Amino acid sequence: MTCHSTSPTLADIRRAAERIRPYAHRTPVLTCAALDEMAGARLLFKAENFQKVGAFKFRGAANAVFSLTEKELEKGVATASSGNHGAALALAARLRGTKALVVMPENAPAVKKEAVAGYGAEIFFCRPGERAREETLARVVDRTGARVVHPFNDPLVIAGQGTACLELMEEIEGLEAVVAPVGGGGLLSGTALAARGLSPGIRVLAGEPAGAGDAFRSLQENRIVPSENPRTIADGLLTSLGPLTFPIIRELVERIVLVEEEEIIRATRLIWERMKIVVEPSAAVALAAVLKEKAGLAGRKVGLILSGGNVDLDRLPWGPPPGAEGG
Amino acid sequence: MTCHSTSPTLADIRRAAERIRPYAHRTPVLTCAALDEMAGARLLFKAENFQKVGAFKFRGAANAVFSLTEKELEKGVATASSGNHGAALALAARLRGTKALVVMPENAPAVKKEAVAGYGAEIFFCRPGERAREETLARVVDRTGARVVHPFNDPLVIAGQGTACLELMEEIEGLEAVVAPVGGGGLLSGTALAARGLSPGIRVLAGEPAGAGDAFRSLQENRIVPSENPRTIADGLLTSLGPLTFPIIRELVERIVLVEEEEIIRATRLIWERMKIVVEPSAAVALAAVLKEKAGLAGRKVGLILSGGNVDLDRLPWGPPPGAEGG
Repeated sequence: MTCHSTSPTLADIRRAAERIRPYAHRTPVLTCAALDEMAGARLLFKAENFQKVGAFKFRGAANAVFSLTEKELEKGVATASSGNHGAALALAARLRGTKALVVMPENAPAVKKEAVAGYGAEIFFCRPGERAREETLARVVDRTGARVVHPFNDPLVIAGQGTACLELMEEIEGLEAVVAPVGGGGLLSGTALAARGLSPGIRVLAGEPAGAGDAFRSLQENRIVPSENPRTIADGLLTSLGPLTFPIIRELVERIVLVEEEEIIRATRLIWERMKIVVEPSAAVALAAVLKEKAGLAGRKVGLILSGGNVDLDRLPWGPPPGAEGG
Repeated sequence: MTCHSTSPTLADIRRAAERIRPYAHRTPVLTCAALDEMAGARLLFKAENFQKVGAFKFRGAANAVFSLTEKELEKGVATASSGNHGAALALAARLRGTKALVVMPENAPAVKKEAVAGYGAEIFFCRPGERAREETLARVVDRTGARVVHPFNDPLVIAGQGTACLELMEEIEGLEAVVAPVGGGGLLSGTALAARGLSPGIRVLAGEPAGAGDAFRSLQENRIVPSENPRTIADGLLTSLGPLTFPIIRELVERIVLVEEEEIIRATRLIWERMKIVVEPSAAVALAAVLKEKAGLAGRKVGLILSGGNVDLDRLPWGPPPGAEGG
């Protein structure tokens, strides 16, 4: 069994980049003059909405699955995920020739359920909430002997997520800050490790929904504050930090910017309208944070990780306009 | 006065590319494995939704405005446009330091009205329909002495629109077919001139909404059939062919594929969901045509011009889902 308890390093992220190169997209870095003007800064968007399965999650899942031995993969891989990690693990497992078992909350967006099923995973539905998930996953693993790939509390997954920022910084010189959204902290800790590893003076910031502000409070209280009854449209950012991600974030992340629901919705819509790309609200949390932190980032060259683009197109974040009729 | 009556050539398109290079984006060429599978062909999408003002129209407008002399521009430029050409001319005029006067139907999408106004043009609203537009434009020109830049029936505009296909074919070798949507035919004729100029054996196809099928009928009847009471969600494709675009299309375009409204809506949604980009229904008409012509394009390497991405995000093509409530 591989040891999953130590923090990954920049070298692990570089190895992950090599390992997933045949499978993952090298996503483009986009710019937008209108958003630069609005932010008063130069924004470089790493477009992980264009990644396989529509989210950065494929990087970590692929790195984990392709790091395991055939023996370790014999009984398949399993995870509990609100969606993008589940789809990512399903695709990575299919590419590696093994099976994926995915526990999902029954209220996950339809588009995410369909994606997971579409990549050939077996889905086990559970009630919303971390406890129901964990219990269901434990039962599944008990019965099948599948190997768990945690959505973020796994050094291989964190190293995989860090490859997005690695690519961004290889492509764009002179970044002064990097901003990522934070849920369980896999993307944020991988981003921070890559960014600070490559450029020790770079600032790493995070955006978090005020309605799911457990990571913010965790830094304040210097302990992992559990996410309880989170309420936000950013459905990828509901979970608590983990024992692996929390210390990395505490050490390397300058601050977590809390953003309100209206700010998330506005940022999502701005990206759709001005950049002509589809991102999910969780991804727009990074832009919402940048717009809120304007003063501190004025004139700077700022990288943002747009984490994903899986949205239910029948239920847009801004809802139907006044006067629209139901069908 | 420059002569506006002869058909442009590949050399004109090359000159246009040089002329607009400092102002226009070189847009990316995108691919999508899921859509390739669905079409049974290799699809290369030229993403003009990422162009300045969100549509290819900027290419033609910029080429026209930057071709005119200072004297010709003294009293500004004027046009009648349902939106994207108006925004394009407004921005091109601003960049050249002259003013733009734009006649728009009062029922144009809000996002297009705002764009035109946002680029500093003066708007003159008219009733929907080509006749009201022409009359209003004539009055505006009469009063101001502004120089008319027609949305498509102008060799400089056609040459500018052809630069999208020129870039696509410079970047992608071995294309066997190119598909563009057709409204007035500026994009289609420019595309056909570029494609056949660079590769005489390439097939050029067009998509047209069945509810605005005047170009299809024009080829059938070998005369310009006027567009009367067109009804389609593809609001960029409402106009008739012009005396300049019709002969080019007749000579170089293999066939026009009529697509139904449901096919346009489905193609739009597929592009949003699978490619994670925002395109307007007019742009998706090209994909709808490819999906309809599957048999004829099986296994081919096919370029598609995604014409634009200006959509009113409060009124999505697929409408609110069953059971959604009005605000």
